[in-house]
Amino acid sequence: MKAVQKLKLKNEQGKFICVGLDTDLEKIPHHLHSLENPILEFNKKIIDATSEYAAAYKINFAFYEKLGSKGFDILLQTKEFIPKDILAIADAKRGDIGNTSKHYADSVFNYFRFDSITINPYMGEDSINPFLEYEDKLIFILALTSNPGAEDFEKLQLKDGSYVFQRVIAKVNTWNKKNNCGLVFGATKLQELKENINSFGEMPVLLPGVGAQGGSLEDVMDLFIKYNKHNLLINISRGIIYKDNSPDFAAAAKYEIQTMNDKVNKLLPIKKSG
Amino acid sequence: MKAVQKLKLKNEQGKFICVGLDTDLEKIPHHLHSLENPILEFNKKIIDATSEYAAAYKINFAFYEKLGSKGFDILLQTKEFIPKDILAIADAKRGDIGNTSKHYADSVFNYFRFDSITINPYMGEDSINPFLEYEDKLIFILALTSNPGAEDFEKLQLKDGSYVFQRVIAKVNTWNKKNNCGLVFGATKLQELKENINSFGEMPVLLPGVGAQGGSLEDVMDLFIKYNKHNLLINISRGIIYKDNSPDFAAAAKYEIQTMNDKVNKLLPIKKSG
Repeated sequence: MKAVQKLKLKNEQGKFICVGLDTDLEKIPHHLHSLENPILEFNKKIIDATSEYAAAYKINFAFYEKLGSKGFDILLQTKEFIPKDILAIADAKRGDIGNTSKHYADSVFNYFRFDSITINPYMGEDSINPFLEYEDKLIFILALTSNPGAEDFEKLQLKDGSYVFQRVIAKVNTWNKKNNCGLVFGATKLQELKENINSFGEMPVLLPGVGAQGGSLEDVMDLFIKYNKHNLLINISRGIIYKDNSPDFAAAAKYEIQTMNDKVNKLLPIKKSG
Repeated sequence: MKAVQKLKLKNEQGKFICVGLDTDLEKIPHHLHSLENPILEFNKKIIDATSEYAAAYKINFAFYEKLGSKGFDILLQTKEFIPKDILAIADAKRGDIGNTSKHYADSVFNYFRFDSITINPYMGEDSINPFLEYEDKLIFILALTSNPGAEDFEKLQLKDGSYVFQRVIAKVNTWNKKNNCGLVFGATKLQELKENINSFGEMPVLLPGVGAQGGSLEDVMDLFIKYNKHNLLINISRGIIYKDNSPDFAAAAKYEIQTMNDKVNKLLPIKKSG
C-alpha cells in the first residue's frame, strides 16, 4: 500500500497524532536502566501501548546516531515493532547532491524500510529527486519549521514579496508528480499556517511543535477542519512518551494519546464510524 | 589543537586537497570483494597512500548509512585510520531543532570524534548553535552548493537584492564568535565565488564540485590566490579514490593527489619550505 494511502486510512478513522520516538536514556524511567537494552524496551512498550490510537510513528535519528552502530541497531529493531498498517517516518532531515541523496534514500527505504522520511530542501530539486523516485513512500519536505530559527532563512522575503518557505511549497507542488510528497509545517506558526494552508493542495502535512515547543493541538486541528483538510499528522514527542516517569509510563502514554484523540475527534464535523 | 588550526597548518604546507571517501562497494576494485570488509580495506589503503598529501579527509555519511549498523562501524573504523594531524570531516549535512541538533553534535563529535562537520542552515540559528558550542571543532555551513538544485532556493533573490546564500554567509559571520565556523561553496560556481569571496572573512572554505561535477582545481585556486586567501579545502572524491580500478588503485590515488598538489603549488606566489 502506498504510504500516502496508509496515512489517509488512519486520518479517516479520526487518528491524527504522530508519536515521536525521541528516546533519550537520560529521560526514560529509571527502572529500565538495569535492562540489557533500555531504549529498545522503552520504545516497544510505548508502541504497544499507543498503536491503537497512533496515526504514525516518527523516529528521530539523532537520538539513535549518538549511540553509534548500536543506536542504528536499536533504530532498526524499533522500526520493526511498528505495526505494518501504521506509517513509520524516518525523521532524518536528509538532503545532499543527487549522487549522495540516492544513498540516503537507499538507507532509509531499503535498509531500514521506513514508509516515509523528512527532507531538508535547501539544496534543491536534484537533492530531493532520488527520494521521490520511491513512488510508494511519503517524502515530507521542510517548509516552515517550528523553531525560532525558522525566521533566519525560511522566512526571508523575496523580491516578489513572497517568502522562501512559500517558494518551497510552490516547488514541492510541481515535484509531486507521483503523489508522494508531503510538507512539514510548524504547529507553532499558526498565522502562517492559516495564510498558506490553501497552497498545500492534497499533500499531507506533518506538524511538529505541539507541546514542549508551544503549539496547540486544538488550534491546529480547528484550522484544518475549517479549511476542510483532513490529511495531516500532528506530532507529539515529549508530551506523550515522557508523560510519566514511573513504571506506569506506557499506560500514561496510552492515556495521553487517547485523551488527545478524543479532543481532536470532538472537533471533527462528522463522527466517523471506523 | 583547534580544528581550524589543524587545517591552517596543512594549508601553510601547501596542502589544499580534501579526499572525499564516498566509498561504494559497487565502485571499488573487484579484487577487494573477497575480503571480509572490502570498504574498510579500501579506505585504509586510500588513506595510507594519500595522507602525505591530504589536507583533510571527508567521509560522506550516506555511503555508510545505507549499510546500517555495519556501515556505522566501518565509518568509525575509517575515522580511526585518519592520522590525528589531518582534519577529519563528517560530511553529514545535519540540522534540526536545537534539542535534536545537540544529539547530532554528540554523535559526530563525541561518538565518532570527527574534527569537523557539514551543516545545512535551512532551519536557522538554534539548529546550528549546538554544533557551535564545540569550540575546538570546525563547522562547515552550506552557503552555495555545487549542484544544479542550488538555483532553486539558495539563489533566490531577496527583497533587498541579495540572495539567500549571501544572507547565510552574513549570518554565519555573526555566529562565528568562537572562530569555529567555515563555509561550503561549490567549486562549480566560479562567478559567484568571485563575487562573494570577500564576504568569507577569515573563515575556511570547503569547496566540493571539482572533477565529476565539473569544477576546475586551477580556477578555484587561482581565484583564492588572487584574493590573498589561503584558508581553503578543495574536495575531490571520485577523481582520486576511483582513479584506477586495478589492484594498483591506492598508488594511482597517491599519484593523482600528488599531481594535483604540484599543480596547485605551482600557482602559489611563494614556495613554502614546510
